[in-house]
Amino acid sequence: MSQVMDLQTFMQERKKLVEDALFTHIAKIDAPPVLLDSMRYSISAGGKRLRPLLVLATLKSYGKSEQIGVPVACAIEMIHTYSLIHDDLPSMDNDDYRRGKPTNHKVFGEDMAILAGDALLTYSFEIMQQLLNEGVEPIKVVTLIKELAKAAGPTGMVGGQVADMEGEGKKLSLQELEYIHRNKTGKLLGFSIISGAILAGASEEEIATLELFTDHLGLAFQIRDDILDIEGEVEKIGKPVGSDTLNDKVTYPALLTMEGAKGKLAFHIEEAKRLLSQLPLEADLLNQLCDHIARRDH
Amino acid sequence: MSQVMDLQTFMQERKKLVEDALFTHIAKIDAPPVLLDSMRYSISAGGKRLRPLLVLATLKSYGKSEQIGVPVACAIEMIHTYSLIHDDLPSMDNDDYRRGKPTNHKVFGEDMAILAGDALLTYSFEIMQQLLNEGVEPIKVVTLIKELAKAAGPTGMVGGQVADMEGEGKKLSLQELEYIHRNKTGKLLGFSIISGAILAGASEEEIATLELFTDHLGLAFQIRDDILDIEGEVEKIGKPVGSDTLNDKVTYPALLTMEGAKGKLAFHIEEAKRLLSQLPLEADLLNQLCDHIARRDH
Repeated sequence: MSQVMDLQTFMQERKKLVEDALFTHIAKIDAPPVLLDSMRYSISAGGKRLRPLLVLATLKSYGKSEQIGVPVACAIEMIHTYSLIHDDLPSMDNDDYRRGKPTNHKVFGEDMAILAGDALLTYSFEIMQQLLNEGVEPIKVVTLIKELAKAAGPTGMVGGQVADMEGEGKKLSLQELEYIHRNKTGKLLGFSIISGAILAGASEEEIATLELFTDHLGLAFQIRDDILDIEGEVEKIGKPVGSDTLNDKVTYPALLTMEGAKGKLAFHIEEAKRLLSQLPLEADLLNQLCDHIARRDH
Repeated sequence: MSQVMDLQTFMQERKKLVEDALFTHIAKIDAPPVLLDSMRYSISAGGKRLRPLLVLATLKSYGKSEQIGVPVACAIEMIHTYSLIHDDLPSMDNDDYRRGKPTNHKVFGEDMAILAGDALLTYSFEIMQQLLNEGVEPIKVVTLIKELAKAAGPTGMVGGQVADMEGEGKKLSLQELEYIHRNKTGKLLGFSIISGAILAGASEEEIATLELFTDHLGLAFQIRDDILDIEGEVEKIGKPVGSDTLNDKVTYPALLTMEGAKGKLAFHIEEAKRLLSQLPLEADLLNQLCDHIARRDH
């Protein structure tokens, strides 16, 4: 068992490792400079790098080398970044700012933003083969690529985004809202943890338990997001407070009242922690991550 | 050595096989119906299915089972289709028609067209793992996924599309024009043949020769495209004749005169055939494909 570590320290230390790896990847790509600039712009727009850190935290919790997870961590962050670029487009959410900076299409134009997104998505699958260099068996690499594609594609993130668009301006049930979140954000977030567990050699039973864990964690993440949209501070969340209401999006507080949403957030965090306690891993770091997700202010 | 076969017969028979496989894939995806409709719409817009047929033709030329190539063939066709959807977008080429039918965004809206493209691209990587079911070794599957991503991503198709956009309205050298075509269309076309050869167990030397072969074939394909844009019939090519000139695109005839372009087309076809004759395969089908590409009228 590895020693208990403070989550903040872990996140700060590994953030730089992940970002260095991301920029090293982009520097190696032989492509028109303006395309690389556009890709680099959105990759450097930053954020918490939560998904890559979940890959590494899971490996660490299993007492394994975090290094083997770096290619997956980078691939996931590139896919997350592409999804933000495309979501921000005028024909989608039409956002001018993201994390306090002008969105990709405001700087590089709509055509280049679409292509930078396409490039990041495609390149993420090229990165995955680097797992071979880390000694991962080829069959595991194929499994991870399949699961990444499922989490990001029509049965995952893209499907969730479509359901979200279709749901705008409509009265949604809790079930419909959860379908959107499970797919739009939940599956890629979940894959961040599952991929770490697969790399760590977790059993099928452990993976099944972790899938339930990530489901609760993903929903908790989204409920907190909805709460922040109402109660957050614009400087911290990097977008106007109340933009969900403005964009006519159904949110947890709108559906369940603010008190109900907070109760549901607490329930999912509790369930996540309960499942975590059943697993043969050093749970402290992931427990702290649960608390972080429940309390985050941006 | 397999028996000599007429190319037209081969293309007609296998086209249905490929299309059936494509629609079977889409029918199995668990996603919002409107997203699947949008994906299916562009997949059924048809075309020659040249890329999938190249995968199968290469396997057949090596005397191998074509069946093992079907997952790659489908993945390539989905990536080709996504690239057409995104290229047609208002912020890109702004085309209203493709193969005589309204473009995806004219029917489903710009947002859904972007997402259908994203879904097809991502799903193509999910399909690749089905090669395992065909008995392909995991390490080969990883190699094929890597090469597919390279052909489609920033170092391939997306990079070529960016260079094409950047070159619009500029005076390009032949070298710059060839960079665009090698990447925008050549690499995915080339991968169609290379993937078939990798699946057939071709040696590294053979792959190297085939890469030169596909380079000539890809350039020939593009020169013929440019010639058709001037000399073609609108009913056959499915878009207005002269649209390249209208869109201020540099073409081979513009750069080399029509006679020069036709000479270059003949040169590349000859070189392709010469390389083909050096390979330990039944070359007849691929020879006929060379002729088909040189003479096609749509």
